[in-house]
Amino acid sequence: MRSVTVRDMDDLALGAAVLGTGGGGDPHIGKLTAAATMRRHGEVALIELDDLADDDLVIPAAMMGAPTVMVEKLPRGDEIVRAVDGLQAYLGRPIRAITPIEAGGLNSTTPFIVASHLGLPVVDADGMGRAFPELQMVTMTLHGIAATPMAIGDEKGNTAILNTVDNVWAERIARTMTIQMGGVAMIALYAMSGAQARGALVPGTVSLAIHVGRAIRAARAQKSDPITAVLGVTGGRRLFTGKIVDVSRRTERGFARGEATIHGLDVDEGHELVIQFQNENLIALNDGQVVASVPDLITVLDAETGEPVTTETLRYGFRVVVVGMPCADAWRSEAALALVGPRVFGYDVDYSPLQPRMPTTTR
Amino acid sequence: MRSVTVRDMDDLALGAAVLGTGGGGDPHIGKLTAAATMRRHGEVALIELDDLADDDLVIPAAMMGAPTVMVEKLPRGDEIVRAVDGLQAYLGRPIRAITPIEAGGLNSTTPFIVASHLGLPVVDADGMGRAFPELQMVTMTLHGIAATPMAIGDEKGNTAILNTVDNVWAERIARTMTIQMGGVAMIALYAMSGAQARGALVPGTVSLAIHVGRAIRAARAQKSDPITAVLGVTGGRRLFTGKIVDVSRRTERGFARGEATIHGLDVDEGHELVIQFQNENLIALNDGQVVASVPDLITVLDAETGEPVTTETLRYGFRVVVVGMPCADAWRSEAALALVGPRVFGYDVDYSPLQPRMPTTTR
Repeated sequence: MRSVTVRDMDDLALGAAVLGTGGGGDPHIGKLTAAATMRRHGEVALIELDDLADDDLVIPAAMMGAPTVMVEKLPRGDEIVRAVDGLQAYLGRPIRAITPIEAGGLNSTTPFIVASHLGLPVVDADGMGRAFPELQMVTMTLHGIAATPMAIGDEKGNTAILNTVDNVWAERIARTMTIQMGGVAMIALYAMSGAQARGALVPGTVSLAIHVGRAIRAARAQKSDPITAVLGVTGGRRLFTGKIVDVSRRTERGFARGEATIHGLDVDEGHELVIQFQNENLIALNDGQVVASVPDLITVLDAETGEPVTTETLRYGFRVVVVGMPCADAWRSEAALALVGPRVFGYDVDYSPLQPRMPTTTR
Repeated sequence: MRSVTVRDMDDLALGAAVLGTGGGGDPHIGKLTAAATMRRHGEVALIELDDLADDDLVIPAAMMGAPTVMVEKLPRGDEIVRAVDGLQAYLGRPIRAITPIEAGGLNSTTPFIVASHLGLPVVDADGMGRAFPELQMVTMTLHGIAATPMAIGDEKGNTAILNTVDNVWAERIARTMTIQMGGVAMIALYAMSGAQARGALVPGTVSLAIHVGRAIRAARAQKSDPITAVLGVTGGRRLFTGKIVDVSRRTERGFARGEATIHGLDVDEGHELVIQFQNENLIALNDGQVVASVPDLITVLDAETGEPVTTETLRYGFRVVVVGMPCADAWRSEAALALVGPRVFGYDVDYSPLQPRMPTTTR
């Protein structure tokens, strides 16, 4: 167990945005909100999955909605606490620890807001090892853990407890409520025991994100290449270097959907990379050939600073490096690919894995 | 207190469809489902508002959604019981009585399904004295009673408990969930005390509906005019006699919206009546002049049988009589018209009342 400080929020938000593959929320908002909360309510302990007793109650907490909207509606912090409190009251049992549901600039720091408010630790893990656009796309689904009872609420004070027949129905109903609530909602779901968490969650995601963020910051300080630093920590590789020449983006049924076209520079001169996204980057095609796809991670980084470019901040003229990073091992089974593989998102291609993720070297 | 029998369901569904002003669900489905439930689980006691103790818990139960869809998705009966049970469990107090939220072919009999299942009485009252398309359009809103906590569920087994900041937000969130649930949902809401029920509900709506249904049936048996019988019981008047020549209807944002055009026959020869509806008939214009509007009741009756024609069964060629009936007194205040008057539905006209409703002569 270690304590996570206000300063760690910078590294966490930055690194988690790299793992967030374009989604998971804006890292600046994430770190500002979490840091403000921790200054007021105290720092947060980061515990390991092994620190949990079998019957401990573990609750993931997150924001739901199109990241485009999340940028416009700055969360106050207490809305998400209310959602978690609501689920705790419904379950009638005390929560032992909070966990992130995904890695992302906002959704990696959101659990720290809740944990700081409630004086609880955060588990060094998550349900994706990256970000995915839909609620059922978590390792918990592979392990038969129900998304509901689920608490959902907005900043106005509207709340609900959902009980659905399966995790896809949780996504459908919560998505439509999120749209009605103005595009963003706070959620607490996938209540699980310590034993379930150990079996289902992706371990080490929080410390991996902090490690990635720290590596970028160190590289900048040393005037070395931050992208090389990211690849060193994540075991990823460069997919493309170029300049963004076109971005189409629309908010559709509660998601930010679209694609970015990048014209090659340097070694990629004369080639074109297209990235398609639904909140998160889903697939990258180099001159029409798939070079990476879900569940592997595709992230656009600013060529100079290594700053991750989220799907809502993609802009014409940005000089970027697109990196591919191997997903958590949990996503490479046949069952996992049926939940989050390219065909689930409508692409008629088989998943062709990048090399396996390197073991986490941090902590 | 009297017992309501299986046979009463015929009269109730028929008469409530007259008061339902085109909405409130199909009377055939309503009576079939309620009668089947009562044969299995027993008849139901009908009690007066005065029979309630001040702190008794009273719960309205209803189906929500476009009537067009309700016709296609026959309710089984236990979905609505689950919604009421869910609200009772959430409140942690036993329900003393069920009440209808509106008068309508389906929503007047729905409470009897619940009451029969749970062995509870139904209160002879409702929250509208007619049917309205939106959840907040009830006399309870005028008396500051909150729609939430509200239970909502579908036939698949998805359920939720909502808590919203006001009754309009309850409508907005529940409507979007209803659409996602396939167009129809079962709801239990506006939990209130016996004292609140006495102050807020429209008294006598169930017995008035049974009385209307019985009058139509008696007229048919005696070969007298069923429409005259309806007008006698409700204090209404004929607005127009004619043949439906055009119906446009669409399911839009969870509502059945549209209009019917009727060409005059007999005394109305040479004139044209247009009725516009949103689940319920909202306004009637004779040659472009408003002759009746919400909150007064506008109902289309089959010219021969007196059978009410709901908005989803309006068809080209039907020979009909359109009747206007005065609304409950509760709807004639300024506050009430701000909630359910013609301007709320987008019509730039003042409400011009039909004569006051006649006192209920039944029981």
